[in-house]
Amino acid sequence: MKTITLAKTASLLLSNDNFHILTHRYPDGDTLGGAYALCYALRALGKKANVKVNGKVADKFSDFTAIYEDQDFLCEYVVSVDVAAMSLLGDLHDEYCDKIDLCIDHHGTNSVEAKCGIVDASSAAACEIIFELIKELNVEFTREITNAIYTGVSTDTGCFCYSNTTAKTHRIASQLMDIGCDWQKLNQKHFETKSRAKLKLERMLYDTMEFYCDGKCAIIYTTLAMQKELGTSDDEIEGIASIPRQVEGVKLGITMREKEDGTFKISVRTNCGIDASAFCARFGGGGHVAASGCSIEGDLDTVKDMLVKAAMETL
Amino acid sequence: MKTITLAKTASLLLSNDNFHILTHRYPDGDTLGGAYALCYALRALGKKANVKVNGKVADKFSDFTAIYEDQDFLCEYVVSVDVAAMSLLGDLHDEYCDKIDLCIDHHGTNSVEAKCGIVDASSAAACEIIFELIKELNVEFTREITNAIYTGVSTDTGCFCYSNTTAKTHRIASQLMDIGCDWQKLNQKHFETKSRAKLKLERMLYDTMEFYCDGKCAIIYTTLAMQKELGTSDDEIEGIASIPRQVEGVKLGITMREKEDGTFKISVRTNCGIDASAFCARFGGGGHVAASGCSIEGDLDTVKDMLVKAAMETL
Repeated sequence: MKTITLAKTASLLLSNDNFHILTHRYPDGDTLGGAYALCYALRALGKKANVKVNGKVADKFSDFTAIYEDQDFLCEYVVSVDVAAMSLLGDLHDEYCDKIDLCIDHHGTNSVEAKCGIVDASSAAACEIIFELIKELNVEFTREITNAIYTGVSTDTGCFCYSNTTAKTHRIASQLMDIGCDWQKLNQKHFETKSRAKLKLERMLYDTMEFYCDGKCAIIYTTLAMQKELGTSDDEIEGIASIPRQVEGVKLGITMREKEDGTFKISVRTNCGIDASAFCARFGGGGHVAASGCSIEGDLDTVKDMLVKAAMETL
Repeated sequence: MKTITLAKTASLLLSNDNFHILTHRYPDGDTLGGAYALCYALRALGKKANVKVNGKVADKFSDFTAIYEDQDFLCEYVVSVDVAAMSLLGDLHDEYCDKIDLCIDHHGTNSVEAKCGIVDASSAAACEIIFELIKELNVEFTREITNAIYTGVSTDTGCFCYSNTTAKTHRIASQLMDIGCDWQKLNQKHFETKSRAKLKLERMLYDTMEFYCDGKCAIIYTTLAMQKELGTSDDEIEGIASIPRQVEGVKLGITMREKEDGTFKISVRTNCGIDASAFCARFGGGGHVAASGCSIEGDLDTVKDMLVKAAMETL
């Protein structure tokens, strides 16, 4: 992938048309916010553009899909937003794997096979890059665009709390608020509301919590049976990954989620510089230093034992 | 109280010496952060200044007291920071009630009896005013000062999440991060760490949660026996009041805490404009529209029944 500047990225977008914008699987606020903001900006420039959503959109992000309509055209240019690796293309992989023209991302480990791309690991969210890009494109920041970007920036930083937050993140937030966005409504929805099912899930999770390595490692899990009993959506399960790391003294917090395909989706969150990415690389995964993930096949006890063994070697 | 400008406030501080800086009772991050930041700034100007802490400082704010030493001098000028009313002077009331020269605050309802003051209700935190004031005083922002101000700004806005956050709040945060402050360590401590005791407390609280009025009212409680079993400090119990309101659909969230004196301390948090203050006034309490409190004498079931009855009449 050829690395290009923001200015070159803007000029590529200006000189092309009929865009498909790809999001990553298990779409979160950043990939959705970035993709929709870019889509609205391209449409404002008189171009045709559609967002290709990758799997089910969580209820809390339904605002994006509620106000959006697909356009009818033949795709000529493919852009991926917040997609760090080809495997994250999920349902979109087969159709687009050899067709990505432009990759816009903020994961330092980005390995997307695209013709060219802008990958800025100093951005807390892909939406920070999208924000600068839309300024470069000289498109007016409508309410839809500011809301989409605020959603990405705030959700990827845990509302400006996580260690990936930067001075730039705050500057962008202040500009979005100055321009006008529904940040109060968005914060309420994303950070201050829990469904009853989520609440039950948390109680169950607390009951599964086990500590290892003198309390430096905490593990929680959900099984399919638990998820079924609770009627919890995938949406509600997202976000639980931060729970074990929050406990005083924990440096390595591991969350195991049983999936239908016989694997466990593992989310790792760390404190004190423990490398979550290296930890997950042992199991074929990766991500950021403080937040990474991987998938492991096996039953609960086997997978847990593998993780505990790796934790002991890491800590 | 005569209202003065930021420039006049700075000039008053520059032309006086031997300061006592007052905080409010149950001191939080904003009153402590603002008072210590101002104290360090005045000392940097070669003046003598002490912070008068009002009651016990929570463990999470112990950094302030750990690096601070009282100076020896006779007080000549008294400044209050983040104190909204004389009653909030607590232990300091009798000594200082008729001696406050300057009041610095951000509560629109401020009723402090001071010679003069700067009250800016557009600031999310008193520390936002202190930040501008220290710039006006032309004092260098040391690590101690930036950390103190970041603490006030971030804790009073729930880490930039609550509805009092403004574009200015984000701009100040970005400047503090540019100058250099330990915001990651501070966020970790204030927003992302739960003691195991707090975790256990939350589990117990979730087990006590009951819903009334078609899920519009949620009630949780702690008893003395529970608190004893957990060994939870008052510090840890603070903050639990927001739990019931966070549940989807809840408009009236009630938290009951059994006290040693045979009463329950009731905290009420509301959504959607339900008047918490009017609710608590039924029991001789009061506060803000969305956050109020009262005390009720009686055993658990009696007090709960009274609250449920009042909730039914309110909703």
